[in-house]
Amino acid sequence: MTTSSSPRSLTAIVLAAGKGTRMRSDLPKVLHKVAGRTMLGHVLAAVQAAGATRVGVVAEPGRADVAAEIERQAPGAGVFAQAERLGTAHAVLAARALLAEADDDVIVAFGDTPLVTAATFTRLRAPLAAGASVAVLAFETESPAGYGRVLTEGDRVLAIREEKDATPAERQVRLCNAGLMALSGAQALALLDRIGNDNAAGEYYLPDAVALAVADGLSVAVVPVDEAEAQGVNDRVQLAAAEAVVQARLRRAALLGGATLVAPETVYFSHDTVLGRDVTVEPNVVFGPGVSVADGCTVRAFAHLADVRLEAGVKIGPFVRMRGGAVLEQGAEIGNFVELKNTRMGPGAKAAHLTYLGDAEVGAKANVGAGTITCNYDGVFKHRTSIGAGAFIGSNSALVAPVTVGAGALVGAGSVITKDVPDGALAVARARQDTKPGRAVAMREQLQALKERRKGR
Amino acid sequence: MTTSSSPRSLTAIVLAAGKGTRMRSDLPKVLHKVAGRTMLGHVLAAVQAAGATRVGVVAEPGRADVAAEIERQAPGAGVFAQAERLGTAHAVLAARALLAEADDDVIVAFGDTPLVTAATFTRLRAPLAAGASVAVLAFETESPAGYGRVLTEGDRVLAIREEKDATPAERQVRLCNAGLMALSGAQALALLDRIGNDNAAGEYYLPDAVALAVADGLSVAVVPVDEAEAQGVNDRVQLAAAEAVVQARLRRAALLGGATLVAPETVYFSHDTVLGRDVTVEPNVVFGPGVSVADGCTVRAFAHLADVRLEAGVKIGPFVRMRGGAVLEQGAEIGNFVELKNTRMGPGAKAAHLTYLGDAEVGAKANVGAGTITCNYDGVFKHRTSIGAGAFIGSNSALVAPVTVGAGALVGAGSVITKDVPDGALAVARARQDTKPGRAVAMREQLQALKERRKGR
Amino acid sequence: MTTSSSPRSLTAIVLAAGKGTRMRSDLPKVLHKVAGRTMLGHVLAAVQAAGATRVGVVAEPGRADVAAEIERQAPGAGVFAQAERLGTAHAVLAARALLAEADDDVIVAFGDTPLVTAATFTRLRAPLAAGASVAVLAFETESPAGYGRVLTEGDRVLAIREEKDATPAERQVRLCNAGLMALSGAQALALLDRIGNDNAAGEYYLPDAVALAVADGLSVAVVPVDEAEAQGVNDRVQLAAAEAVVQARLRRAALLGGATLVAPETVYFSHDTVLGRDVTVEPNVVFGPGVSVADGCTVRAFAHLADVRLEAGVKIGPFVRMRGGAVLEQGAEIGNFVELKNTRMGPGAKAAHLTYLGDAEVGAKANVGAGTITCNYDGVFKHRTSIGAGAFIGSNSALVAPVTVGAGALVGAGSVITKDVPDGALAVARARQDTKPGRAVAMREQLQALKERRKGR
Repeated sequence: MTTSSSPRSLTAIVLAAGKGTRMRSDLPKVLHKVAGRTMLGHVLAAVQAAGATRVGVVAEPGRADVAAEIERQAPGAGVFAQAERLGTAHAVLAARALLAEADDDVIVAFGDTPLVTAATFTRLRAPLAAGASVAVLAFETESPAGYGRVLTEGDRVLAIREEKDATPAERQVRLCNAGLMALSGAQALALLDRIGNDNAAGEYYLPDAVALAVADGLSVAVVPVDEAEAQGVNDRVQLAAAEAVVQARLRRAALLGGATLVAPETVYFSHDTVLGRDVTVEPNVVFGPGVSVADGCTVRAFAHLADVRLEAGVKIGPFVRMRGGAVLEQGAEIGNFVELKNTRMGPGAKAAHLTYLGDAEVGAKANVGAGTITCNYDGVFKHRTSIGAGAFIGSNSALVAPVTVGAGALVGAGSVITKDVPDGALAVARARQDTKPGRAVAMREQLQALKERRKGR
Repeated sequence: MTTSSSPRSLTAIVLAAGKGTRMRSDLPKVLHKVAGRTMLGHVLAAVQAAGATRVGVVAEPGRADVAAEIERQAPGAGVFAQAERLGTAHAVLAARALLAEADDDVIVAFGDTPLVTAATFTRLRAPLAAGASVAVLAFETESPAGYGRVLTEGDRVLAIREEKDATPAERQVRLCNAGLMALSGAQALALLDRIGNDNAAGEYYLPDAVALAVADGLSVAVVPVDEAEAQGVNDRVQLAAAEAVVQARLRRAALLGGATLVAPETVYFSHDTVLGRDVTVEPNVVFGPGVSVADGCTVRAFAHLADVRLEAGVKIGPFVRMRGGAVLEQGAEIGNFVELKNTRMGPGAKAAHLTYLGDAEVGAKANVGAGTITCNYDGVFKHRTSIGAGAFIGSNSALVAPVTVGAGALVGAGSVITKDVPDGALAVARARQDTKPGRAVAMREQLQALKERRKGR
Repeated sequence: MTTSSSPRSLTAIVLAAGKGTRMRSDLPKVLHKVAGRTMLGHVLAAVQAAGATRVGVVAEPGRADVAAEIERQAPGAGVFAQAERLGTAHAVLAARALLAEADDDVIVAFGDTPLVTAATFTRLRAPLAAGASVAVLAFETESPAGYGRVLTEGDRVLAIREEKDATPAERQVRLCNAGLMALSGAQALALLDRIGNDNAAGEYYLPDAVALAVADGLSVAVVPVDEAEAQGVNDRVQLAAAEAVVQARLRRAALLGGATLVAPETVYFSHDTVLGRDVTVEPNVVFGPGVSVADGCTVRAFAHLADVRLEAGVKIGPFVRMRGGAVLEQGAEIGNFVELKNTRMGPGAKAAHLTYLGDAEVGAKANVGAGTITCNYDGVFKHRTSIGAGAFIGSNSALVAPVTVGAGALVGAGSVITKDVPDGALAVARARQDTKPGRAVAMREQLQALKERRKGR
């Protein structure tokens, strides 16, 4: 979804080379996920939705996993290695080739601030169209300690002051630099190249572009943003906090869209979950990526869904797991302790209890009894099971794939079906019942006697 | 439960005709549920508990679902159609026939404010017995914007001022009209008939009764209520908020009553859930309607219960689903991935794993093995299964109903039982094991070879 | 973990005789649990971690359950009966024998304040080493009503004033007595013996030791503590609040240690849960006592674990239950609706769906098919099942223990295995499939006709 219809071109540079030591992880920080998508993926989606057609990501050299994620989320984006870590301005300049080609607007984003929306990026670049050379994103906070302060006079930005360089009066300022910046494409490279590293840490700081621009008499705008939206992620407490913010957004959107979430705080969405109108979701449901739920569906408590499509009026749960492209067509139902993997159930088909259907096709109004298992794996290959429309699979049956049960066919309870069953046929594969009067009493007495003897020893 | 012992008669008129457009639902707003009961049901229960013996509901014409819910929750209540929607006073007058018969007290309630308790309705009508002609329910709030302000002088109410008609000074008032009203039965109709529609929206406003009463020199009382309790529901965000308030009340009552909820915020009650003393409920339990849990029971995590009775000392879960009138008698236990539907288990009976018992009777101290399935449905009829006291059902068995396993009987693991098993008998129905040395090695080699050939193509 | 390296000896007296009437429980209050450990256990752990080598617990006489818990949590601790309930000073003096032997430091703790940490006990005793005779733990609060106020002058404590004895000015004091106290071992007994009961309730109050010490010219220190940490538990609402505090601590520690908790607020830890680095825990996981999870494991949603060890790289869930010493070795996986009890699975072994493995040993890379059940109980004895490395158990099989399936062996789907299967062998135990063309159609017609006839009656 593109939120921008600006005729101006947009280049986005995303800084994603941070080590993320405080994450205590082998995974690069920007690949940690929020609502089922990497933080980097969120940022790349947002800048593209804001109109960025040229995207560059500055990354730690040699991370194939980061490069693959960039290609997945922003195909064709440039990947620029930052070998030495000499500050944010130095990082942006790693994408010098991209900056040199920038026409109109440039935005600098961070791979670890996944909450910034496309709408905010659009607001951030807006001042450039109105003549500003630089725009900085800033938030008001009760706890400014540690942030760079944005010093202003009326509408004009004077400077961004790092905390350690701030006077006591400046430390009282509560308007803080969120780090993200928009720059005029015509001026960006020249400004960045002039940033020096004459400071305590010997780093090249991107915010110094503000003072340089002001000194040149260029216009610098400040664009406000909500404190929560601007938060970065440096450890897993903050990652969990970011997840909570995104979940709150997704829950609110689902509710206002006409879904009932009995306990919204217990429903976990993926960034791409689609819920229809008059959908009811009971407590404790986890939506993984790739789930769509059509109008009028009921998702009972304790469901775990990923890569699933539920058509209108479907009922599932409680206690269901669906994955791998599972599809329930209109009015189909699955009940408790049922797993569907790569299986399509036709309209009105049912599987109510303790069932595994993998790599299967179930026809309309077929009834799959409790305890049915598709044996879809022989240790080497996966095979398909086909159950015809209106068929009835008796409880506790095993269907050894590849196998077809025809339309309207019946499988007797407890059968192991290894051969195809024609339409309308009855198939039974079970042993004769052998009942021995009094034998249970005798066996129990023997076991109890044995137990007594063992105790006695 | 009736909270009022007033000798005065009480007539309640519940306004329930709102469209609820912001719910984005095909279901009328007042039929959306909170804690397993419709919002309308909550209001009807509260006014009846406050002593209302005559109840009228003003509803959208032609909604059979609303009429049915009214009859269910307040049998014999009048249903009055509001065809045109000309304001709250107009709505109340749709129940003119009921108002005309009112003796002592009348209360006007709203179908979309489900949090108002019977105790509050009792407080609201109390001033009438003391001579007031009108009593209005009002709450103090930090955010009065949008509400009518209650203008007072000492104890006396002067008027309710709609926000758009309020002076800047009046807008500073934080005492807001909750909408609910009590009126003297002798005066209600006359007051309401004099309310006009000379205002911007051309609507007949119920709060205008206050100014008319004051002008007549009648006494108007204000009755305070907590802001949260007065909240109405207009969209599903507010519906979820109302649910949260009711759940908090129910959880607190359960805790103070002597149940341990390890994580109260993850336990979802129905309005009618009954928990005994020294009950332990682990996290993530969903109680649907009709559940009672006696003293000393343990409900482990991940349970989904509706229409269930647990007698003293029962243990269930984790991961259980019970429904359809399931009963566990004293000390019975069911374990993980077990479903009970319309099944009674006798004292000390157990079903510990992966089992479906439907339409069954299980005797005292019987042991139902892992993976047992009652095959209770033949595609057309449901049939019953009976398991005698002390019987032992071997794992992975299917019991094809109608069938009886006698007291003390034994069913061998993996059996499909189609014929009754006498008391004390052993029944086995399974095939002989055929073991082929070396064959697994050969088969695996064949499959691997096939795989290699396919790859090679 | 001992947080103290003080060379001074420490004696701890824990008051645990409270009736706990408001708990409405048959269980003594101090045996109610927080994060899987009794409140008394938390306190005993904390005082021992703070260096207490001599521990006494004052308990209600004749409670074998309390005595057993004391012995479990603090082996060798003295148990002192408080027969009459004459106040906190009287309670402490029940442990007179222990006090008489105290050398350096004495702390008095309460069995119903489970949140006080070892670090706080260490801070509380610290002033004694610096010459104080008494140190009291105190917290600042917005709501001091009901607490004894700590009256100070600069650093000096003057007295602890019970609320009912306080002047209006003293009631404004917000520094409140948390109840816990440290006393010089040399002076403790003499001070306590002088406490009288000349007050409204006729009780001997421990805080009166402060005024006596001050009157003697001894130094009394005040040690601050966070209000939340000082909270006691008197009913189950407060028990749930204490649980929430402990869970928040445990979650934060797990996150900062390098585990991702997608929804920390839905993960319930035991006090002793151990999580490695780069562990991912999805929403809704309940850790009972005795669980350790090594680096790189994934615990999917809806897991219930107790007494379990997961080695590196293990994946479990969603919907799993593990208990009774279950162990998953490196890279093993179990999937949905799987229960493991007292079972070890070797490296890379898998059981993906609807399976119960009890008292079993599963070899490396073995594959246990969907619906597999170990029949480990014959009604009297439990027996073991052994599955060899690389074996393949076909779906819906029952393994009747004691039984061994050899390495690389194959069990056909739907088999009931009662005899050992040699290495590399194929075992099948199932009936021949009998397919009757057209018979399903005929049977369904008969049932439908029967249904029509019944309706007709």
